[in-house]
Amino acid sequence: MPVRLIVDTDTAGDDVNSLLIALLHPNIQLEAVTISVGNVGFEQQIENALYTIEMAGRSGQVPVYPGCAVPLVNEWVAADYVHGRDGMGDSFFPRARQRPEPQHAVDALIERIHAAPGELTILAQAPLTNIAVAVTRDPSIARKVKTLYIMGGTYFAPGNITPAAEYNFYVDPEAARIVFRAGFDIRLVDWGLCVRDTVLDDGDLEDIRRLDTELARFYLQVNRVVRQFNETVGIRGVTHPDSIVAAMIADPAIARGWQPCQVDIETRGELTRGASVITPAQYAGVEKRVERPNAQVCLGADRERFKALLMDILARR
Amino acid sequence: MPVRLIVDTDTAGDDVNSLLIALLHPNIQLEAVTISVGNVGFEQQIENALYTIEMAGRSGQVPVYPGCAVPLVNEWVAADYVHGRDGMGDSFFPRARQRPEPQHAVDALIERIHAAPGELTILAQAPLTNIAVAVTRDPSIARKVKTLYIMGGTYFAPGNITPAAEYNFYVDPEAARIVFRAGFDIRLVDWGLCVRDTVLDDGDLEDIRRLDTELARFYLQVNRVVRQFNETVGIRGVTHPDSIVAAMIADPAIARGWQPCQVDIETRGELTRGASVITPAQYAGVEKRVERPNAQVCLGADRERFKALLMDILARR
Amino acid sequence: MPVRLIVDTDTAGDDVNSLLIALLHPNIQLEAVTISVGNVGFEQQIENALYTIEMAGRSGQVPVYPGCAVPLVNEWVAADYVHGRDGMGDSFFPRARQRPEPQHAVDALIERIHAAPGELTILAQAPLTNIAVAVTRDPSIARKVKTLYIMGGTYFAPGNITPAAEYNFYVDPEAARIVFRAGFDIRLVDWGLCVRDTVLDDGDLEDIRRLDTELARFYLQVNRVVRQFNETVGIRGVTHPDSIVAAMIADPAIARGWQPCQVDIETRGELTRGASVITPAQYAGVEKRVERPNAQVCLGADRERFKALLMDILARR
Amino acid sequence: MPVRLIVDTDTAGDDVNSLLIALLHPNIQLEAVTISVGNVGFEQQIENALYTIEMAGRSGQVPVYPGCAVPLVNEWVAADYVHGRDGMGDSFFPRARQRPEPQHAVDALIERIHAAPGELTILAQAPLTNIAVAVTRDPSIARKVKTLYIMGGTYFAPGNITPAAEYNFYVDPEAARIVFRAGFDIRLVDWGLCVRDTVLDDGDLEDIRRLDTELARFYLQVNRVVRQFNETVGIRGVTHPDSIVAAMIADPAIARGWQPCQVDIETRGELTRGASVITPAQYAGVEKRVERPNAQVCLGADRERFKALLMDILARR
Ligand SMILES: [Ca+2]
Ligand SMILES: [Ca+2]
Ligand SMILES: [Ca+2]
Ligand SMILES: [Ca+2]
Repeated sequence: MPVRLIVDTDTAGDDVNSLLIALLHPNIQLEAVTISVGNVGFEQQIENALYTIEMAGRSGQVPVYPGCAVPLVNEWVAADYVHGRDGMGDSFFPRARQRPEPQHAVDALIERIHAAPGELTILAQAPLTNIAVAVTRDPSIARKVKTLYIMGGTYFAPGNITPAAEYNFYVDPEAARIVFRAGFDIRLVDWGLCVRDTVLDDGDLEDIRRLDTELARFYLQVNRVVRQFNETVGIRGVTHPDSIVAAMIADPAIARGWQPCQVDIETRGELTRGASVITPAQYAGVEKRVERPNAQVCLGADRERFKALLMDILARR
Repeated sequence: MPVRLIVDTDTAGDDVNSLLIALLHPNIQLEAVTISVGNVGFEQQIENALYTIEMAGRSGQVPVYPGCAVPLVNEWVAADYVHGRDGMGDSFFPRARQRPEPQHAVDALIERIHAAPGELTILAQAPLTNIAVAVTRDPSIARKVKTLYIMGGTYFAPGNITPAAEYNFYVDPEAARIVFRAGFDIRLVDWGLCVRDTVLDDGDLEDIRRLDTELARFYLQVNRVVRQFNETVGIRGVTHPDSIVAAMIADPAIARGWQPCQVDIETRGELTRGASVITPAQYAGVEKRVERPNAQVCLGADRERFKALLMDILARR
Repeated sequence: MPVRLIVDTDTAGDDVNSLLIALLHPNIQLEAVTISVGNVGFEQQIENALYTIEMAGRSGQVPVYPGCAVPLVNEWVAADYVHGRDGMGDSFFPRARQRPEPQHAVDALIERIHAAPGELTILAQAPLTNIAVAVTRDPSIARKVKTLYIMGGTYFAPGNITPAAEYNFYVDPEAARIVFRAGFDIRLVDWGLCVRDTVLDDGDLEDIRRLDTELARFYLQVNRVVRQFNETVGIRGVTHPDSIVAAMIADPAIARGWQPCQVDIETRGELTRGASVITPAQYAGVEKRVERPNAQVCLGADRERFKALLMDILARR
Repeated sequence: MPVRLIVDTDTAGDDVNSLLIALLHPNIQLEAVTISVGNVGFEQQIENALYTIEMAGRSGQVPVYPGCAVPLVNEWVAADYVHGRDGMGDSFFPRARQRPEPQHAVDALIERIHAAPGELTILAQAPLTNIAVAVTRDPSIARKVKTLYIMGGTYFAPGNITPAAEYNFYVDPEAARIVFRAGFDIRLVDWGLCVRDTVLDDGDLEDIRRLDTELARFYLQVNRVVRQFNETVGIRGVTHPDSIVAAMIADPAIARGWQPCQVDIETRGELTRGASVITPAQYAGVEKRVERPNAQVCLGADRERFKALLMDILARR
């Protein structure tokens, strides 16, 4: 039985790779894509999702719902220096045939969760605005989602937007706090894991190039700007924060263990706004004990197994 | 032409008086009531709104939409010590015949605003969660609402829940900030005005008693707990924070002038969380100038004219 | 018996008027002047104090101790646009004969307080850095000072540096919080009182001009820049935040009553950093009650009596 | 030439071991001990320092100066559950012959630094209140201290008092921020290093027992409560946060490298107050780049070399 999945995405860079896995892996049945504020311009993100569906040969089969185009309280902070102005490596692909749905992502999420209680898994690979608005509007959905996988935060590792914070949580810290307090069954993959265990270096990229498929070329095109950007921040290769999570959903053995933790988000700090404060369940600091874990935090990923899965997807077309 | 109005309310105490004005004053056409998290239990607030409509003799004529039952980020803070456990002076009225609508308040707001762009006035007399979620989900509504009247905040006056904050903004400071930054045409009536210009004392209450109508008795019943509570905080009578705004909408001459201001909400302070920071447009502090006023703040109210209007409403049934 | 006084000052503008009262009024015995970070450059403030002593004909009789030249945590924020670059109306007076003491203000304060326990009154008319450092270094001084008069904060009135904050507390909010929590017997005069009750308008300034004394000319010279600055912020005349307090010390009848309050300073707010949160002892908000008043807050001043006292001082030389 | 050293300490537990190294290692010339607010009652900490000097056979040779007994802004938070009520493993040792100096620690620091500019090294192994008050009172000392070694903070590791913060910085975050911004030449050893590289387990403690000296017995007595406490937080042995730094001063080869970083302290966060935000100089997050490193952060310690040094000290008497 494949995992019935909804992906909430700010489609740019590795969001695309993640969507390809969700669209093409036999263990996943992708039922909808919802678009959140994030990496690049909101309309561009919608187009990127639609184009990715087309590239996967599934045009018209997976609906795309535009959601919240601004964070709750913050001003929007773009990440186009990372992924190119179009979020696709400055490729400026042609417009896809499939068009977005008229329904709002928040309504689509609520409706679909109620229609299949306990059945749907969500992969949230963007700022959590859509999920936060949905669960504020209807708190009952938290218990009806099977598992909510989240890419975000840092677990005792430097952030990618400030030393203390990762981009997705930094863009909408209030949304992240709302989601982590709402009662979902959450599995969290943090940015630190991505830097340690998901980098594909030039040798790996050469392996992908040799696949010589349309998707392999698409992958290399989309990720060429991030490859260059990473060089400037000391990472020798392409990171896979979103696709590693999609890969774990398709093949749970890629995750090297999960630790029950209490996760909360700093919304007030001067230096730490958007920081994830992750406390292992067994932590015993003096002024703080974990009352109840609210998330499983991933401890590591099997890079080789992930690479094999990704290459298998890219080899398909 | 009456004002086409939606009231967003956490129905308890003076929310009821405000609804009576909106239901019965000829200058107002009340088109919907939306229920927000606030004073007392959420289900109770829905019942209070429905019962008030019934008391006004308008059962079945004005739909009631339940909205967000929790604030965005905060834990809910009740105010039942002010208004009685049921928010109606511990009256525990019978259940009204009319039932709430199945549509969510946020959806109803968005749908109705789009259906009548520039036509609808909103009176927000509760924590601003519903309005904030609606405008995050669909930012275009801000410019399509005619005027958004808000009861909340303090304008250089002590708050009613902390020295620095008024209840509605304190319960959901992030929602208040979102709403004031969203681009609505806002008119704000603060708690300080209510203490100065809207208190009806025992003599006034005696005047209401002498009306000897069903609504007069209803008013006295609903407000008896707040009358006692106010005594403990040094206010000799009943305050009318919500109904003063409804009265201003029905009869603009009750407002003694409006001042263009920049209004923002403190969300991070240790002592000042939920405080409204209201800066008159002409303010010129050294580290801060007003770039653009985002609200008109009411400078005062004509207490006698308000009392006359309220008594006129209570005399009708 | 005159009041034995130490003035802690960031000598510029009205600090000068206050020093003149302290130097020349028979009810005050000025024993020392300590210089704090504040209005203008630190060395300039020392010179301004020394020159003021000389102008009062008391050169060499009152020691001046330089103190902390930077706030505790904040970067320094100058106020030279208010008082002129030299803090003296751009007068650039000649250097005084008297020179500052080698002892540090903090040491001088501690030593003198211990030498006369219960005898010394302090007038703090600057950011509270010196007092905070002194009482952190030696907490026992709090109970040994007779009365600590403080000019600072706002009591439900707009601030002069941000809408929420007054300059002295804004420059060093942590210092203000330390001082209000240290156990001093505090009397507070806020900025709002100064705007309401201490403005001398052009007619008043004309009265001073007619005195035709050296000190009257000195006063007009020192205050000419602030007179112009005030025009830009809507105040028609010269404010006397510091000298009103000196005048109250010399003639307590100038104060129109004092209210026991709990005073604390917001150090964390985004919009409200440095704001004074002043809660009257009888306040009863729901989430906050006053446990113990820590200050008497002045309710108003007798402007005419103040003006007469000031003119009497300016007429002396 | 031995290092001329002053130790600022909240004497309890490992502070004692650190003092023993400073007192007895030939590469260190301990010139003064200053006492800061911290682990246990302030008077007890003074006695612990004096008793430790006596145990080292150096009674009367090293002056002890009491300093600030309270943090700047915070309420004091004790750590007596870690070190025993007396901070010495509940040993309640007899009173030492040597008595504390009458001079305040802050004055002693300033005086001694000015007397030997560029000559003195400071080891700050307590909340940074004394150093912060000294440098606020006299900013010129920052450039006159040779090197300021600080034990505090966490470098992408969990804190010991909250998940986000280490005790010394948590007790007085404002002091820590002041010190890191003051311009000292700082070397920082964080709590994470101490957990990784300084734990002596039961086998190591047995090696110490076999030394069978007075100091070995003293060490075991003082550290018995922390040994038990550590068990409850998942550490199998005794941590040496302070003595590892003293050991590095005596034998620099114990430090496994230093990384230039920008270090700042979060003072406003809700979950992260007191957290150290440490950014390696080469970090390139998007919203943050390091303008100027203000500290060298230690990357690791040679545990065996440290153990050998400690045992050598404990074998001396
Ligand atoms: Ca993403
Ligand atoms: Ca209400
Ligand atoms: Ca001043
Ligand atoms: Ca210590």
